[in-house]
Amino acid sequence: MLDNPAPGLFASNVFDQIAILAPGLLGASVARAVRHYGVAKQITLWARRPETRLQLKDQPWCDRVSDSPADAVREAQLVIICTPVDQIVPIISQIAPHLAAGAIVTDVGSVKGEICRLGEQALMPPASLASFVGSHPMAGSAQTGWEHSRADLFAGRAVFVTPLAETKPKVTEQVAAFWAALGSDVATMNPDTHDEIVAHISHLPQVIASTLCATLSKKDAQWRNYSGGGLRDTSRIAGSDPKLWKTILEQNRDEVLRALRDYQEELHGMERALANRDWFEVQTILERGKAYRDSFRPIP
Amino acid sequence: MLDNPAPGLFASNVFDQIAILAPGLLGASVARAVRHYGVAKQITLWARRPETRLQLKDQPWCDRVSDSPADAVREAQLVIICTPVDQIVPIISQIAPHLAAGAIVTDVGSVKGEICRLGEQALMPPASLASFVGSHPMAGSAQTGWEHSRADLFAGRAVFVTPLAETKPKVTEQVAAFWAALGSDVATMNPDTHDEIVAHISHLPQVIASTLCATLSKKDAQWRNYSGGGLRDTSRIAGSDPKLWKTILEQNRDEVLRALRDYQEELHGMERALANRDWFEVQTILERGKAYRDSFRPIP
Repeated sequence: MLDNPAPGLFASNVFDQIAILAPGLLGASVARAVRHYGVAKQITLWARRPETRLQLKDQPWCDRVSDSPADAVREAQLVIICTPVDQIVPIISQIAPHLAAGAIVTDVGSVKGEICRLGEQALMPPASLASFVGSHPMAGSAQTGWEHSRADLFAGRAVFVTPLAETKPKVTEQVAAFWAALGSDVATMNPDTHDEIVAHISHLPQVIASTLCATLSKKDAQWRNYSGGGLRDTSRIAGSDPKLWKTILEQNRDEVLRALRDYQEELHGMERALANRDWFEVQTILERGKAYRDSFRPIP
Repeated sequence: MLDNPAPGLFASNVFDQIAILAPGLLGASVARAVRHYGVAKQITLWARRPETRLQLKDQPWCDRVSDSPADAVREAQLVIICTPVDQIVPIISQIAPHLAAGAIVTDVGSVKGEICRLGEQALMPPASLASFVGSHPMAGSAQTGWEHSRADLFAGRAVFVTPLAETKPKVTEQVAAFWAALGSDVATMNPDTHDEIVAHISHLPQVIASTLCATLSKKDAQWRNYSGGGLRDTSRIAGSDPKLWKTILEQNRDEVLRALRDYQEELHGMERALANRDWFEVQTILERGKAYRDSFRPIP
């Protein structure tokens, strides 16, 4: 699954030290991939729970474990915050006075507008001489926890990098190059465009899968034993963490509502076609869906 | 993936000959599994296209290829019809005069009510001395074609067997034992109950996945390149054959409409919670969905 270490784009730009705060599936996969591709000489981790810190200490993709975010970031040139979305800005404020001059801070949160605006503010002088630019890798799944991390998690996956108008181009370029070095396909855009896109391609599917299962949960309990591959695939992400997703939907409420209404309209069109026995229209909707699904680029 | 051949239930009940009509993914997987488990001494196949018949001839799970359904079924004790749902009853009528006395006919169609009523009628004396009872394996996927067939396709999967009130219990038992011998978990129920269940757990997910993709197909074409695992899973079955699915939705229209309205109501509840910023309710829906999804029994 993994190509050769250190692809060209980044070969000339190895960090002396990167810090990953709150490594779960995504953060620990970043650490593994950084090690695999030789993107940093030293990897420092901080985790909230002492027992996790103990476990991380023994991983070959961890050089140093810190007891506090402040300590973890002190010498890092790149800091990657992997907390749930509602804790990203508080962590940025907390580390701001401890960052090295010129350090770059990024995150892996699923919503970008508010985080990018508040994140950039939190790092403005005199608080710090560091910079923030948001990231969002379209990787991960219903599985969580660093135990499930994989060095190839980002290979061939889209990663959004979301500068504000005032973000220094050099900062954006370095973060984009970082993700590219881990094998990702980087898309750079402003945070609001990002939030509109993911409302449709990520948050809407989550709402759809969860409400499908919520619907079925009201039916005969026996039915779940009959589930085939179709239901299993369609509903898989309903198994994701409800608290995390509540926070994501909260931060992206307006765009999610717009996406949901687009979808309800399409669903209503299908309902009408079925009600009217308009089989031509039913097949047309199914064909539009298939043409779209078949056009996804393959991922490794 | 496969346990030992010939599980106990069926060991004493090997068919001399079974005929599989129109083997695609499901039918060819039946043939492979029948061979693997030693459930029949001879496997006869018929396919509509002459070039498919030529290819099937060379498969180790095929003993004889017939040029017509009539010829294929003549000496079979069990006939399995694997055509699309709208062709099952016509095929039953076509083979009726050629079936051996006491032969059992079944199918693998995704809708059962109409097929079971008309199928049983088509085999009533004087047309035939054979019996029909419907089956529906919850196996298969967006992949179709005998080339993708697998002997373990039914292992641990639910298979519905759907007798009418007037179906002889012995016939139902034999068909149930057949599927159990291929490793399936058999659920026996009347065709209308089946149609209500699959409207919710199979046809509704198809409608949801297809309309999700149909919604996204109206958006910026670039967005599809950013799809992560969540969208890919949730939309996977949108890649299924639209013509096949149009026919399934047509045959199960009333139940699908009911299931769709259940789902729309749930979706509307989510929309209302988002609109009202009722984050407690949002999380409650997500939690109900997760509890349901997590309760699926594992499949091998």
